[in-house]
Amino acid sequence: MDKSNLYLKKIIDLALEEDIGMGDLTTEAIFLQEKKGKGVIVAREEGVIAGLPVAEAVFLTLNSRLLFNPQVQEGETVTPGQEIAHLQGELSFILKGERTALNFLQRLSGIATVTRQLLYLIVDLPVMLVDTRKTTPGHRVLEKYAVQVGGGHNHRLGLFDAFLIKENHIRVAGSIKEALRRVKKCRPVTSKIEVEVRNLSEFEEALQEGADIIMLDNMSLQEMKKAVQININQALLEASGGITAENLRAVAETGVDMISVGALTHHIKAMDLSLLLV
Amino acid sequence: MDKSNLYLKKIIDLALEEDIGMGDLTTEAIFLQEKKGKGVIVAREEGVIAGLPVAEAVFLTLNSRLLFNPQVQEGETVTPGQEIAHLQGELSFILKGERTALNFLQRLSGIATVTRQLLYLIVDLPVMLVDTRKTTPGHRVLEKYAVQVGGGHNHRLGLFDAFLIKENHIRVAGSIKEALRRVKKCRPVTSKIEVEVRNLSEFEEALQEGADIIMLDNMSLQEMKKAVQININQALLEASGGITAENLRAVAETGVDMISVGALTHHIKAMDLSLLLV
Amino acid sequence: MDKSNLYLKKIIDLALEEDIGMGDLTTEAIFLQEKKGKGVIVAREEGVIAGLPVAEAVFLTLNSRLLFNPQVQEGETVTPGQEIAHLQGELSFILKGERTALNFLQRLSGIATVTRQLLYLIVDLPVMLVDTRKTTPGHRVLEKYAVQVGGGHNHRLGLFDAFLIKENHIRVAGSIKEALRRVKKCRPVTSKIEVEVRNLSEFEEALQEGADIIMLDNMSLQEMKKAVQININQALLEASGGITAENLRAVAETGVDMISVGALTHHIKAMDLSLLLV
Amino acid sequence: MDKSNLYLKKIIDLALEEDIGMGDLTTEAIFLQEKKGKGVIVAREEGVIAGLPVAEAVFLTLNSRLLFNPQVQEGETVTPGQEIAHLQGELSFILKGERTALNFLQRLSGIATVTRQLLYLIVDLPVMLVDTRKTTPGHRVLEKYAVQVGGGHNHRLGLFDAFLIKENHIRVAGSIKEALRRVKKCRPVTSKIEVEVRNLSEFEEALQEGADIIMLDNMSLQEMKKAVQININQALLEASGGITAENLRAVAETGVDMISVGALTHHIKAMDLSLLLV
Amino acid sequence: MDKSNLYLKKIIDLALEEDIGMGDLTTEAIFLQEKKGKGVIVAREEGVIAGLPVAEAVFLTLNSRLLFNPQVQEGETVTPGQEIAHLQGELSFILKGERTALNFLQRLSGIATVTRQLLYLIVDLPVMLVDTRKTTPGHRVLEKYAVQVGGGHNHRLGLFDAFLIKENHIRVAGSIKEALRRVKKCRPVTSKIEVEVRNLSEFEEALQEGADIIMLDNMSLQEMKKAVQININQALLEASGGITAENLRAVAETGVDMISVGALTHHIKAMDLSLLLV
Amino acid sequence: MDKSNLYLKKIIDLALEEDIGMGDLTTEAIFLQEKKGKGVIVAREEGVIAGLPVAEAVFLTLNSRLLFNPQVQEGETVTPGQEIAHLQGELSFILKGERTALNFLQRLSGIATVTRQLLYLIVDLPVMLVDTRKTTPGHRVLEKYAVQVGGGHNHRLGLFDAFLIKENHIRVAGSIKEALRRVKKCRPVTSKIEVEVRNLSEFEEALQEGADIIMLDNMSLQEMKKAVQININQALLEASGGITAENLRAVAETGVDMISVGALTHHIKAMDLSLLLV
Repeated sequence: MDKSNLYLKKIIDLALEEDIGMGDLTTEAIFLQEKKGKGVIVAREEGVIAGLPVAEAVFLTLNSRLLFNPQVQEGETVTPGQEIAHLQGELSFILKGERTALNFLQRLSGIATVTRQLLYLIVDLPVMLVDTRKTTPGHRVLEKYAVQVGGGHNHRLGLFDAFLIKENHIRVAGSIKEALRRVKKCRPVTSKIEVEVRNLSEFEEALQEGADIIMLDNMSLQEMKKAVQININQALLEASGGITAENLRAVAETGVDMISVGALTHHIKAMDLSLLLV
Repeated sequence: MDKSNLYLKKIIDLALEEDIGMGDLTTEAIFLQEKKGKGVIVAREEGVIAGLPVAEAVFLTLNSRLLFNPQVQEGETVTPGQEIAHLQGELSFILKGERTALNFLQRLSGIATVTRQLLYLIVDLPVMLVDTRKTTPGHRVLEKYAVQVGGGHNHRLGLFDAFLIKENHIRVAGSIKEALRRVKKCRPVTSKIEVEVRNLSEFEEALQEGADIIMLDNMSLQEMKKAVQININQALLEASGGITAENLRAVAETGVDMISVGALTHHIKAMDLSLLLV
Repeated sequence: MDKSNLYLKKIIDLALEEDIGMGDLTTEAIFLQEKKGKGVIVAREEGVIAGLPVAEAVFLTLNSRLLFNPQVQEGETVTPGQEIAHLQGELSFILKGERTALNFLQRLSGIATVTRQLLYLIVDLPVMLVDTRKTTPGHRVLEKYAVQVGGGHNHRLGLFDAFLIKENHIRVAGSIKEALRRVKKCRPVTSKIEVEVRNLSEFEEALQEGADIIMLDNMSLQEMKKAVQININQALLEASGGITAENLRAVAETGVDMISVGALTHHIKAMDLSLLLV
Repeated sequence: MDKSNLYLKKIIDLALEEDIGMGDLTTEAIFLQEKKGKGVIVAREEGVIAGLPVAEAVFLTLNSRLLFNPQVQEGETVTPGQEIAHLQGELSFILKGERTALNFLQRLSGIATVTRQLLYLIVDLPVMLVDTRKTTPGHRVLEKYAVQVGGGHNHRLGLFDAFLIKENHIRVAGSIKEALRRVKKCRPVTSKIEVEVRNLSEFEEALQEGADIIMLDNMSLQEMKKAVQININQALLEASGGITAENLRAVAETGVDMISVGALTHHIKAMDLSLLLV
Repeated sequence: MDKSNLYLKKIIDLALEEDIGMGDLTTEAIFLQEKKGKGVIVAREEGVIAGLPVAEAVFLTLNSRLLFNPQVQEGETVTPGQEIAHLQGELSFILKGERTALNFLQRLSGIATVTRQLLYLIVDLPVMLVDTRKTTPGHRVLEKYAVQVGGGHNHRLGLFDAFLIKENHIRVAGSIKEALRRVKKCRPVTSKIEVEVRNLSEFEEALQEGADIIMLDNMSLQEMKKAVQININQALLEASGGITAENLRAVAETGVDMISVGALTHHIKAMDLSLLLV
Repeated sequence: MDKSNLYLKKIIDLALEEDIGMGDLTTEAIFLQEKKGKGVIVAREEGVIAGLPVAEAVFLTLNSRLLFNPQVQEGETVTPGQEIAHLQGELSFILKGERTALNFLQRLSGIATVTRQLLYLIVDLPVMLVDTRKTTPGHRVLEKYAVQVGGGHNHRLGLFDAFLIKENHIRVAGSIKEALRRVKKCRPVTSKIEVEVRNLSEFEEALQEGADIIMLDNMSLQEMKKAVQININQALLEASGGITAENLRAVAETGVDMISVGALTHHIKAMDLSLLLV
């Protein structure tokens, strides 16, 4: 995570604004003068840590003289009680940033942890686990990063960086063929084109028209296997729709190239972490 | 939810920026001309709906001529298949806003649903269920609103609108008494002062010094009952720390005035909703 | 004043933008190369200094290498000719920031000075002098800070951090009782509720319904005394409306807890200060 | 005042943000549903009205469906009790905008009133009353507009739209001549060049080098008369420094072209206005 | 061009801010009251029109009641004297927006015109003319749109939407193979990977490692023909470097899939257009 | 160029946002860890360098630890192969900023080069070459700076810093006399007034009414000479309209004070520069 990332900066600014706004009443009343001290972020449960550069950026946004020293690597699995990061500097700023920094770090670690757990189920198969656009509004770049830290791959970042022709687009264009024709006529040549299909007949049409990726939407395991047989490395095949920990391995065994799971980012359970002053 | 709310506007702008950015490649390539149509948001599972004004604001931000007609009230419990809202206008803007609007609506409805479920367990007791500052960064005002829609009450909005003297503040000031003295000397007279205490001796000190609210942090049921007995309506008592669906009723039965549950907003399970073009 | 305060940053940015915009034509034409030097801010009349961190923030916003050394404490009374602060660094930036920094410092010192003068009249009485929302648009957090520096207390910061039920709200709700009921049902539990009343009968209704603060709006001294007698420490009483240096002491002697004076911030006389290069 | 003015928009946005922020707690709790109504802004004292387009812009920023109907012209002198403007629309938005709109309107009317009063003292003389850069930070364009409404003229808007060579610039350049040479070499040809002088010898140097305007800073009446005699329409002469209602006419009678008075904007007494719901 | 495009809005806001800032002195002084009228944008030379939605957005940003009626289609070739668009509404806003609207429209039409001219030279060949990232800072999305209007195709929009492995990246990674390995490990699966090569040996390495697009940088015609022969539809081939109107056709005849020309956007000659009031 | 210039900051922020957005995919994938290195900007053709502080500001915005050392002065003429600037620091940031920094530097150097070429044609005559408002939207302050670097003078920066009464204004006012009367009545006294005239009769009217500058719009050489004769140092005379390298000297020889050439900024040919890692 590049700490100068623009979207990182935007969401941190908004988060600090909503939490601190006109000031931290309590801290500003209590501290009659500046006082330095140390803090430590500690894990309260097992999980995969993601977002240390984000937590650091929160504190440095408040006060550039604070020191933030990670004690683990991004992506490392930690155990309850383990120290995650050390903080040093003016206590008033550590207190002001505590909640916001933890709110980021706990959520991102929660995402990385779930991603890692799911990957574990298919680790021996040649398939990628990918995310979706079902991310928390304003947190896209962070949550996609947490998926990577957990070992997953990213699907497109937004509507602007790849073509994904869905059912509604096909209906407007009249056919998959016409939809692909329109898309290819346009910008940009560097973007892949994906088509979402619901059955094998649509699949074959998309394949024939040269789609780079084909999303097999809510297809049966049977149909997915068939699609894999037909494909022979022409397009990348993506399984999508209703995939859970229960059916993930079965889907992976159909031979698709990637499996997208919305729950990676739309069911977020913050990992339990806390900040102690020492 | 006032649709002109500033923080609503900020997070919607950021969400649309990260998702659409330089443009929706697919939609802009497919639509050779404007085309009008209708959409409907449908529930895929049971839950409490919250965030319809947010979803509406997303679509209107993209195109002020879109019509958004809710089919249920905020806070209404819906069943699978039930229509939540109708949309009408230029299809290209409905498609561009779909994912972002659902991302908001699904999360907020998830929060309202969980809040309602927990409240159901204590509905006959004179106690309030309140949220915390453990909200998604940038979504504070929305998530606190969803808690209200679910029937819960809000704790402070941020660091700026109430005093909450925590252990670290007390340590810096030297004592609860001194901490309260500093806080009262300062601005503003309209803000309540809450003190976080860890045992009955701290509790009695806070009570004596005139705290408006006292947070009983991770106390045993026994201690909380004792605190309630000592209090006799002087301060509001808040139970906090490690409260789950399992122990919620027992805590409520101690007689505290309110119970704060971080999980209302730090464990978010998006409710399953989808948008269909019709 | 926390120099990282968001609203401080916003108004400084706007002030520098409106004054400098595309550039300081004269200074950029005159300085063929960078030149270092020193400046000193000097008092031209007696008064209470407030806003040194603001003036410093103006200069550091322009150029982070400038040094700003206060020669007096915030809240100190100075005499004509006294040095307030020393400045050191690139002269061109001292010249660019001079007018904006003084415009802030002179106004805030003017507010602190008037606050201190009024407080002097009631210094022996157990009453707080409080400000209002009649502040200069965009300067709320600064002017409330200057009132504190002068020795006054702050009323609520804005519409978001406390409830103030006014006549118009009561009319919409139907009664004080119903207004309080609606407000209590809602967010947040940490906010005090104030009711504005115009006579003793309204006062007693508000008291009975449990208002935290009651504003006695434009009441006679007689009525205010009566209200104080009825109250017996249940609610905080605030005198408001038409209070000037002439009647301030008489109002204070009624026994109210606080007196709000709009003129603290809506009649601003900048203190005379100037910046000299040395 | 063009209501689309960028700086008007910026300061209004900031003012509403600081006052409303996350919401108007009281109004949002009280109004269970939208309710329409009317309001009227009434004068409580005599004065010159300025800023009606600003007040209107405040309300329209909150809700574009509100109607704002001025009952007097900008610059009109009103009497106590006179209606200034009518408002119609959703009451909740009228209440949310009330304080901010009045805070602008009262201050700008205060500035216009003082300007008119001073002008009255010299109305028969061929001299302009001009403002300075001693304006409230962030309110430059509004306060300069209020001076115009009061009948005064504006000096430069900021550092970017005219050259004003002050003592410090002259010292850096070495001489008035060299300072003018540097300034003329540079951008832009459309900007006038003013030089600040402290005595007649500097005055003659500035005149000879072709300054467009010469500021006679803190000169005696005697010296100013002499400067007027020497000048013969070559440059515009501006009297500046320590000018009050007491000495204004004497200064005007020296024959200078304009007199700048900082107090027009650095001593602001808000005119007493109020908004009533009807 | 979607008129709600975020980047369109940002550059228009900046353009109006720098041109109008605190106000249009002349227009605001001259118009004592609002006056309606009509304007017409007329071509002064032959060219391809691009940017009408941009010009319209400039005027509507200033005043949403202005009417802008295009008289030609985007991409239409016009002749000197031909009417391009009609404008109707308040004259003061037409005058304020005139220069900014024309500055956009003239530049974008200039780009479309040059693109069309170059395309004409290779119209019978199966090759795409594509742009680069050598666009005017802040105008990327507009200039890429103008290239499309002229008939060209877009290369990637920025650093965020496609991989382009250049010489410096290869050097850091150690080899083309290792660079591709790193890139594939990472996000996102929807992005194409392009590799820049300088000779046939690098070309064959990139081809073998599965690059989606290979940029033949400053290769001779001979080498490019050879690369085309080797390729057999595995990767898209892009000719790049030093391509002008003189050698464009020869390059196209090598059989490459696309030719990128930086001059499309880094040598901009505004088309001559003017706005007349009628 | 003051590197703290607000408009410089705004356009750089926008440029980096559009180019980098959510991240530099390739660089972030390739660099497994930070790596330091050096770069050099080299001229590929002869020209006048302008914009080194802009290029530096681009790199420092990305990473404040990068070092940028110019090897030539602003305004220096360089030859092909000459080193323009050295860069040192983390390679990943040099790569991220490369294209944006060059896009600015190449354009501004292109403008300075053309300005210098035109000035060379009239270097012995007492006439100024000035720019117009036909600048690239959002780049006004940069391009006017580049014209200065090339040796030209600036006309007004925007609509806000000088009066320019054009034909349309005169028509609305009724006459040149009335237009000047309205303008003088208004703000600010520090702004020059220019009138655009189309023939000698309008010229004489403008001269008589005291215009500071008179623009001779598309007049013949004959008429311009006549205007110069009539003028005798009362107003500055500006030749404007259809001036090219071909007729520039003839126009200069008429004796006008300045000649404005729109092509300085509306026909921009980026100078060929490149950045090499060493």
